[in-house]
Amino acid sequence: METLVLAVGGNALLRPGDRGTAEEQFRRARETAESIYPLFERYKVVITHGNGPQVGAILLQNEYSRDIVPPMPLDVCGAMSQGQIGYMLEQSFHDVLVERGVNRGVVTILTRVVVDESDEAFRNPTKPIGPFYTKEEAEVLMREKGWAMIEDAGRGWRRVVPSPMPLEIVERDVIRKVIDAGFIAIAVGGGGIPVVRRNGNLVGVEAVIDKDLASATLGRDIRADKMFILTSVPQVYLNFGTPDQRGIDVMSVEEAEAYMREGHFRSGSMLPKVKAAIRFLRDGGKEVLITSPEALVDALEGRAGTWIRP
Amino acid sequence: METLVLAVGGNALLRPGDRGTAEEQFRRARETAESIYPLFERYKVVITHGNGPQVGAILLQNEYSRDIVPPMPLDVCGAMSQGQIGYMLEQSFHDVLVERGVNRGVVTILTRVVVDESDEAFRNPTKPIGPFYTKEEAEVLMREKGWAMIEDAGRGWRRVVPSPMPLEIVERDVIRKVIDAGFIAIAVGGGGIPVVRRNGNLVGVEAVIDKDLASATLGRDIRADKMFILTSVPQVYLNFGTPDQRGIDVMSVEEAEAYMREGHFRSGSMLPKVKAAIRFLRDGGKEVLITSPEALVDALEGRAGTWIRP
Repeated sequence: METLVLAVGGNALLRPGDRGTAEEQFRRARETAESIYPLFERYKVVITHGNGPQVGAILLQNEYSRDIVPPMPLDVCGAMSQGQIGYMLEQSFHDVLVERGVNRGVVTILTRVVVDESDEAFRNPTKPIGPFYTKEEAEVLMREKGWAMIEDAGRGWRRVVPSPMPLEIVERDVIRKVIDAGFIAIAVGGGGIPVVRRNGNLVGVEAVIDKDLASATLGRDIRADKMFILTSVPQVYLNFGTPDQRGIDVMSVEEAEAYMREGHFRSGSMLPKVKAAIRFLRDGGKEVLITSPEALVDALEGRAGTWIRP
Repeated sequence: METLVLAVGGNALLRPGDRGTAEEQFRRARETAESIYPLFERYKVVITHGNGPQVGAILLQNEYSRDIVPPMPLDVCGAMSQGQIGYMLEQSFHDVLVERGVNRGVVTILTRVVVDESDEAFRNPTKPIGPFYTKEEAEVLMREKGWAMIEDAGRGWRRVVPSPMPLEIVERDVIRKVIDAGFIAIAVGGGGIPVVRRNGNLVGVEAVIDKDLASATLGRDIRADKMFILTSVPQVYLNFGTPDQRGIDVMSVEEAEAYMREGHFRSGSMLPKVKAAIRFLRDGGKEVLITSPEALVDALEGRAGTWIRP
């Protein structure tokens, strides 16, 4: 059976307009489980996922309660969000499997990802996280906590953290073991908990790793055959959002790189997904699919999605 | 190599007087790793741990921020605490292993524990959790959320939740696999996330499972040979806290039951540990050790601790 890394998007647990209650998130997790179920029958699967809204909520709670509870650093908050989201997803996956008479265990593996302390991202933090602040609050935080902060067009000041390249999945071997033993694994949540090696030790750092790049790294580390990236649109497009918009059914790595150079993919949106696809395929992966949960079944039969091949 | 379930106490991450910062908890985790390291050389090990102070902090943050972030239910908060504590412990275990030249992976497995919806604990919630409230606040919460609440001698009103018996560890098979593959596993954090079976589905419930009883259940489910329970005192005592106090070096299950009947062990303190020991040994376990981290090395050589055998 081939091995698949399945990266589910932020909308796996929350959609625009959702308030973020636990009930909503469990309901969305259930919808996600139903749409991806066909993959469980065909592949050994590791599910990876985002954590933006969840870690945002945790940071907000930390900030709001800082006078009564010591706030946790971002790496610890990320670990908490992996517990939360992993639990919500594994409960839903279990139910969907049981209802279909399939006896297959689901397990959430807390996952750390090694990054390089000399990665230039640490000198140039770009990823906004957590709540908005006034200019006065931001000045205090920059001075007292050493945070890097930027002004976000009209909405106030916000902390920015580095987004370094993922180098290695610490839990690679155990993830490979559990999927070979027949379990569905949930791992590398939120791009993984970023850690650096310092004199052989692992030290957590306050950073955010792109979840699609981390998924590609996992794919390489466990020698996965395929990587599927689920997002809010059914395909990758050329000239996205213009009258000339055109879906891409299939592209090679070389074509993807050419389109990238021509500026077809937006940063913070499709660009990191295409970059992750290229990285996975250059590292030995066989095939990448980018599509939406709704179009997944059609895509598996070649009638939807964007397939990228070496 | 024999299999050991090692239950570490709340003081593995926080000690009396600690403020609860991340730095403190990482430092305590490191101390814990150093004191239990000798076990890693002798056994396949699953570490279980409490989560009282950490889940208490999460509940407090949830409550304090409830007007801006939807509070998560207790099962979700428990999952979050497993992520947090698992991360802190695994980082420390990694470092201590690497410094000693041992190449052994550590992995945190998010763990759910099945309880019975008809457990009488659900009709009689007894376990206090979360912050204290005024009488007026408590009345609103009891009416609007259906919480059970009690008045805690002079300190205010507090929510109480059921503490049902653990029946089965959902992740039993995967935990067995990973320790057989040579990994050190961290599992069943905070007694596990309590779930009930409802028409075959797994549904999370707001309850707290005693961590030592959950550890005994894990021991049975993975056919562990031994269970060690680390706590703040080096031995189990008869007539604890009186002039007649006397440490127990060795006792049988029958002796333990007799002492229990005579009222030697305090509920909420040594009683649940002795009950867990009895349960583990009745279910086929070979040996239980109850001691403190400081006395562990002496205990392994028979010079300290309380050993309980069938």
